[in-house]
Amino acid sequence: MSIPSPGDHPIDRAALLERDAADPLAAFRDAFDLPDGLIYLDGNSLGAFPRRAREIAERVLLQEWRDGLIRSWNDADWFTLPRRIGDKIAQLIGADAGEVVMADSTSVNLFKVLNAALQLRPGRKNIVSERDNFPTDLYMAEGLAQMRGQGHQLRLVDRPEQIGAALAEDCAVLMLTHVNYRDGRMHDMARITRLAHQNGALVIWDLAHSAGAVPVDLKACDVDFAVGCTYKYLNGGPGAPAFVYAARRWQLTAEQPLSGWWGHATPFTFDTGYRPEQGIGRFLVGSPPIVSMAIAEAGIDLMLEATIAQVRAKSLLLGASFIALVRQECADLDLGLASPEDADVRGSQVSLAHPQGYAIMQALAARGVVGDYREPGILRFGFAPLYLRHADIWDAVATIKDVMITHEWELPQFSLRRAVT
Amino acid sequence: MSIPSPGDHPIDRAALLERDAADPLAAFRDAFDLPDGLIYLDGNSLGAFPRRAREIAERVLLQEWRDGLIRSWNDADWFTLPRRIGDKIAQLIGADAGEVVMADSTSVNLFKVLNAALQLRPGRKNIVSERDNFPTDLYMAEGLAQMRGQGHQLRLVDRPEQIGAALAEDCAVLMLTHVNYRDGRMHDMARITRLAHQNGALVIWDLAHSAGAVPVDLKACDVDFAVGCTYKYLNGGPGAPAFVYAARRWQLTAEQPLSGWWGHATPFTFDTGYRPEQGIGRFLVGSPPIVSMAIAEAGIDLMLEATIAQVRAKSLLLGASFIALVRQECADLDLGLASPEDADVRGSQVSLAHPQGYAIMQALAARGVVGDYREPGILRFGFAPLYLRHADIWDAVATIKDVMITHEWELPQFSLRRAVT
Repeated sequence: MSIPSPGDHPIDRAALLERDAADPLAAFRDAFDLPDGLIYLDGNSLGAFPRRAREIAERVLLQEWRDGLIRSWNDADWFTLPRRIGDKIAQLIGADAGEVVMADSTSVNLFKVLNAALQLRPGRKNIVSERDNFPTDLYMAEGLAQMRGQGHQLRLVDRPEQIGAALAEDCAVLMLTHVNYRDGRMHDMARITRLAHQNGALVIWDLAHSAGAVPVDLKACDVDFAVGCTYKYLNGGPGAPAFVYAARRWQLTAEQPLSGWWGHATPFTFDTGYRPEQGIGRFLVGSPPIVSMAIAEAGIDLMLEATIAQVRAKSLLLGASFIALVRQECADLDLGLASPEDADVRGSQVSLAHPQGYAIMQALAARGVVGDYREPGILRFGFAPLYLRHADIWDAVATIKDVMITHEWELPQFSLRRAVT
Repeated sequence: MSIPSPGDHPIDRAALLERDAADPLAAFRDAFDLPDGLIYLDGNSLGAFPRRAREIAERVLLQEWRDGLIRSWNDADWFTLPRRIGDKIAQLIGADAGEVVMADSTSVNLFKVLNAALQLRPGRKNIVSERDNFPTDLYMAEGLAQMRGQGHQLRLVDRPEQIGAALAEDCAVLMLTHVNYRDGRMHDMARITRLAHQNGALVIWDLAHSAGAVPVDLKACDVDFAVGCTYKYLNGGPGAPAFVYAARRWQLTAEQPLSGWWGHATPFTFDTGYRPEQGIGRFLVGSPPIVSMAIAEAGIDLMLEATIAQVRAKSLLLGASFIALVRQECADLDLGLASPEDADVRGSQVSLAHPQGYAIMQALAARGVVGDYREPGILRFGFAPLYLRHADIWDAVATIKDVMITHEWELPQFSLRRAVT
């Protein structure tokens, strides 16, 4: 849809500065170290750098690895790190302690829980998802179904309204991403989970764009399994290990095929046969990348110091003023709104549409406004409430306006394609 | 076997100091930062800290993550890191560039190549391995066979001599660890690989205790697939990502079920269907833990600056003097040799046997001699030639002798069990 012209109450920068002055999360910005002059609207792809991450890195490298060496597996609690941080993540997504571990990548974790869910629904053949789901989720399901060779089918719906009908047809597992990576559309987790359960299916939610961005209550929604990412809104660092959640009721029966020694009930008895841990630990596989994992705790701790209600409230304001300002300042500049108009069904990002989105995003980055681009023609702007200021939205839109008016994006250096996550 | 009394030519510390003075690898010790007074004989479990790792961590955290943010996927070459470091590891194991990537954990990588190998040998039912293989390798094979549900069997031999007979019986894949984690026994990779191929089986070698420790020539041995670890002799840091090798001849047909977006031919076109990269890249899955991966390059680079011939030559001297000194100094102290007598079939570790091995190892650690313990009753001493000195062997054995003679290990604090990797 195109963005209509502004309403009766134009926004000015002073009003946004007032909001910043009253912002209960304002102090969090200092906990991050952001480059001067940069407006970073890509925390939905890679979160910013928490200052504490540096201290953790020093500690892990020097005290723990250099000085402690092998002894640090015990003395520095490296062994318990996946569970200890998992318990912290649990608090951010409405899970209980012992229901989440930090491990591997989101893709690998999805493989584990998808297999577990299929095993728990024998005889049913369909894995239902959305065609617009983040592709790796679909690829993992494809690889798993092919490997199992039991005729499991990936059934992709084109619109959310089709989920109900798909659930009614032999669905073993509904596998959805809560907040869509491209347009930020957010599902009603409670309603859809209930619907799936009414149809006898299990549910896996991918929380990549939800954890630390929007309220998630896995327990209240009675969710079976979930996976998620820590390097976006949780500010865990590039490629920081992901997390996996399994409701306690499934933990003793969930079978995941990546049955490595870290998931064994007694890894140090070195038994020949596999015997899974009687709990969430069975979703662990091999030795975790300790440095990356330990550093991730900095961002997760910061998120725990805020409340998700504060985060969501600020995120809604940031998103609303962004949309309003684009309408007010950039009317007639051919920028469409690619995200839902209704804030209740939108995560913490707003996407705009333009056929030359790639070049425009490059031109913006050159001006210090960093978002990212997704095919086809989608400019993504993510709002991370812990470190963004309300006035940043004004400045970002002013830059967008200027780049669009000047056609700066038509300069040849901005059309050269490079991949970004 | 028990260790006999010393021979005719006793070793003294002065002779070992002379060896240190003539050691072509002596300068490498300064590239590592080892705690004062510690004799570290556990590099086979977690390698020591290369000083350069600190600089890399600073660069990745501050220049790349903090300042570069999302742009570092391109500008700091994060995207190519798994392949770039993979190409370096390739040089250490006799593989070509483009045959190795750094990714995930050894366990997860084994899952990938084991599935690929089974797919390439349809109709055959047996996965042959050793009962004494590192347990996670067996667990992963068990999980994979169960998930596939096609009647694949894990056939475990109790002695290496039984491998030939097992290969003759419907063997799809022979999966062995080159150097045994417990006793350091090393297989003849060339001969066994040839034997497997003669029987129509494919071969997967686990190089966890080989890479950076003993010469490995995957190309000369015509090996099909391999996996390995970077946090032991490659000094990559705690839980540093592992590596996976696939011979070029299998890369276009190898199917691995963990088909994540990082293994896609064109990950940033966000296609709905999976299309694997036409090369080693198809063994990648999700975003790698960049900090842990980048740091690992420090140790790998150091290993590349040595030659594996020098490393092996020094390792053989260290092992030989350790065994000789235990015989000379610790005769009648009930310490058995748990490793092969013949250095040609031994990796870079020597294991001793004692029923109270756990407590003895704890008592040694309290005295600053760090090895580790494996059930049942095995004391492992690893020799990492880049940072160990010949005289360290004398000092270590002198401490072993003292702990054994005084029965210091009988103190109650040393019998308390704690897990170590």
